[in-house]
Amino acid sequence: MNTHDLIRELREPAKTKIVLLVADGLGGLPLEPGGRTELETASTPNLDTCVRDGVCGLSVPVLPGITPGSGPGHLALFGYDPLEYRIGRGILEALGINFSVGPKDVAIRGNFCTLGPDGKITDRRAGRPTNDKNKAAVEKLRAIKIPGVELFVEPVKEHRFVLVVRGDGLGDKVNDTDPQAVGVAPLTAEGQDAASKKTADVVNRFVAEARKVLAAEGPISGVTLRGFATYPKIAKFADVYGLRAAAIAVYPMYKGLARLVGMDILDPGTTLQGQVDTLKKVWADHDFFFLHFKYTDSTGEDGNFPAKVQMIEKLDAVIPDILKLKPDVFIVTGDHSTPSKLKSHSWHPVPTLLLADTCRVDEVEEFAERACLRGGLGQFQAQHLMLLAMAHAGRLGKYGA
Amino acid sequence: MNTHDLIRELREPAKTKIVLLVADGLGGLPLEPGGRTELETASTPNLDTCVRDGVCGLSVPVLPGITPGSGPGHLALFGYDPLEYRIGRGILEALGINFSVGPKDVAIRGNFCTLGPDGKITDRRAGRPTNDKNKAAVEKLRAIKIPGVELFVEPVKEHRFVLVVRGDGLGDKVNDTDPQAVGVAPLTAEGQDAASKKTADVVNRFVAEARKVLAAEGPISGVTLRGFATYPKIAKFADVYGLRAAAIAVYPMYKGLARLVGMDILDPGTTLQGQVDTLKKVWADHDFFFLHFKYTDSTGEDGNFPAKVQMIEKLDAVIPDILKLKPDVFIVTGDHSTPSKLKSHSWHPVPTLLLADTCRVDEVEEFAERACLRGGLGQFQAQHLMLLAMAHAGRLGKYGA
Repeated sequence: MNTHDLIRELREPAKTKIVLLVADGLGGLPLEPGGRTELETASTPNLDTCVRDGVCGLSVPVLPGITPGSGPGHLALFGYDPLEYRIGRGILEALGINFSVGPKDVAIRGNFCTLGPDGKITDRRAGRPTNDKNKAAVEKLRAIKIPGVELFVEPVKEHRFVLVVRGDGLGDKVNDTDPQAVGVAPLTAEGQDAASKKTADVVNRFVAEARKVLAAEGPISGVTLRGFATYPKIAKFADVYGLRAAAIAVYPMYKGLARLVGMDILDPGTTLQGQVDTLKKVWADHDFFFLHFKYTDSTGEDGNFPAKVQMIEKLDAVIPDILKLKPDVFIVTGDHSTPSKLKSHSWHPVPTLLLADTCRVDEVEEFAERACLRGGLGQFQAQHLMLLAMAHAGRLGKYGA
Repeated sequence: MNTHDLIRELREPAKTKIVLLVADGLGGLPLEPGGRTELETASTPNLDTCVRDGVCGLSVPVLPGITPGSGPGHLALFGYDPLEYRIGRGILEALGINFSVGPKDVAIRGNFCTLGPDGKITDRRAGRPTNDKNKAAVEKLRAIKIPGVELFVEPVKEHRFVLVVRGDGLGDKVNDTDPQAVGVAPLTAEGQDAASKKTADVVNRFVAEARKVLAAEGPISGVTLRGFATYPKIAKFADVYGLRAAAIAVYPMYKGLARLVGMDILDPGTTLQGQVDTLKKVWADHDFFFLHFKYTDSTGEDGNFPAKVQMIEKLDAVIPDILKLKPDVFIVTGDHSTPSKLKSHSWHPVPTLLLADTCRVDEVEEFAERACLRGGLGQFQAQHLMLLAMAHAGRLGKYGA
């Protein structure tokens, strides 16, 4: 039986509130053999208090050994099987710039490139234009009209932009037109089925028009397209869990992922304090709150161990403010590990704590990777976390008589 | 999504080397309540050093409570779902005598039996003939020809032999002809589908001819057949993992299992030292090395606790030689447990250690069943071990953006 159908069958109304605090890339590694991880190094008195009163474990985002991107990592935390629900690259790119994609859209990653007089690519990144030049070129592309569809062109940065084609019956089984090489012409888009042929036809016309309107732009003289992706068919949070969910995230990508599953997207500004203030403000209006903290990941990606430690401590400092609201279930976890040592996402399981009156407290006393190994949640699939959240919130009835 | 497809999608080339050392039947049990297991009893200073620098856990070969044979046990370690990929008994028997089965083969286990003048079985094992008598009888069977197929008859030992029928369009849905009783005639082979009817027709003619050619052999006067099995459809190691894999095993069964998944089969002689020397010799030519050590299983099967302890210590002694080669990932595990106390394979999870620069070191200090319970790999499905091996070897890219 499908887990979502099971939840729909068992869920019960309750007045309880769940806070899911995601410290992006939370898990880490020691820099040296015998050393401590970032989380083990950080002073986290508030998280440690939660751990002592709660239950801990380590979540496996996808499968052992699989390193997730932000998409699969968050989908799993939201209770969606990350191997079943895949979000295409074009959609993720659109989410990342806060473009509100919808079910009739095909989203595509675009690159500006430089073409020689023979139409062959001489620079795949058009000399890495400034963001201002990018915006100017995007403005020209916005003049292009193709009958039967709506086109949206949005700047990303440097040579990158997003193209969204909106219309009926568009498919995404279209090859990248970026040949990944210079000295050759961009590839023609071809669709693998009728719907995708329609998309291919639109973008081929777009690419031809783009060459005309960009002609005067100097190094920006053409475009390549890749990562064609339709809007994923995904059940909404309210439908599956019966929860009124709010996303309190700073970065567009995470707002976008939350929007995909139907959360209300709030605007907390750009600071952690702003996020906590927003949480307080909307506390009465929602049942579920997804708070996303980016900087544990970005400092890990930078390979900046002390900065990641500092970000963990910064997060720890706001925990009391969150607890003052008395959430019935308070979860702290990550969407994946980002060890400073590796300067990238990794496959290592993610420390997780769950605090609730109904939890079976274990003997873990510190929020850290190795300590969590002794936790009562064991090592569990991240996609099961929402089941635990719902259960501890008194929102799941008995299965079978 | 199928795990092999996922690996094909995510795998990345790397110059890293992986050693998978399988101590057959590694896990054990104490003989007395409160006692120590074989592994807990053995002095394993070298394995313990690996454990302190690595990460440990316990692998579940098939499912909790399921005792695997050698086939499923190894398939799981090689990353194949042992419930999806089944290797028929005839094929395993053929692998066990180093017969090189192929995709057009149906392999069948044969027993010599004694038939009375009325054609009824009087001894299902033909008086347990010597191996020499077995070979002589097999020689007679080799004279049998059936048009349209090739037949191979190979001695095993005592009353046992292997029959391989090679031809186009042969099925294996054929009943055993061994009635598992004396005083009744062997059963006629019947096929459940067209392909299997073809096989049944061939073997019925073979059985009739066998009676004629064996008539003068005294107690060996007939044959029964069982375990009909076609060659399994199984993706090859190079195709799934992109690894050049070498099997360094002494026993034919394990060479055969490795050949099934497409590893290069090396001939290390019959000693553990010969295996380690072979590993050194071919180190440059492969990315993945499967070393198989049989005697932890056979001593367990014999119920010889001290001998199993000794074999574990013998294995421990060669670890430094393996580590001198500086494998990027070094794994020690078993295909199942074989507790001396039970004198058989068992379902108990198998101690596993993984040593790599990228592993998250846990607090385990001793390679042993109970110590591994505190390990960072937790209890995991054996079929996920190759994912962990690939990840720690830097051979798996990120899933999703």
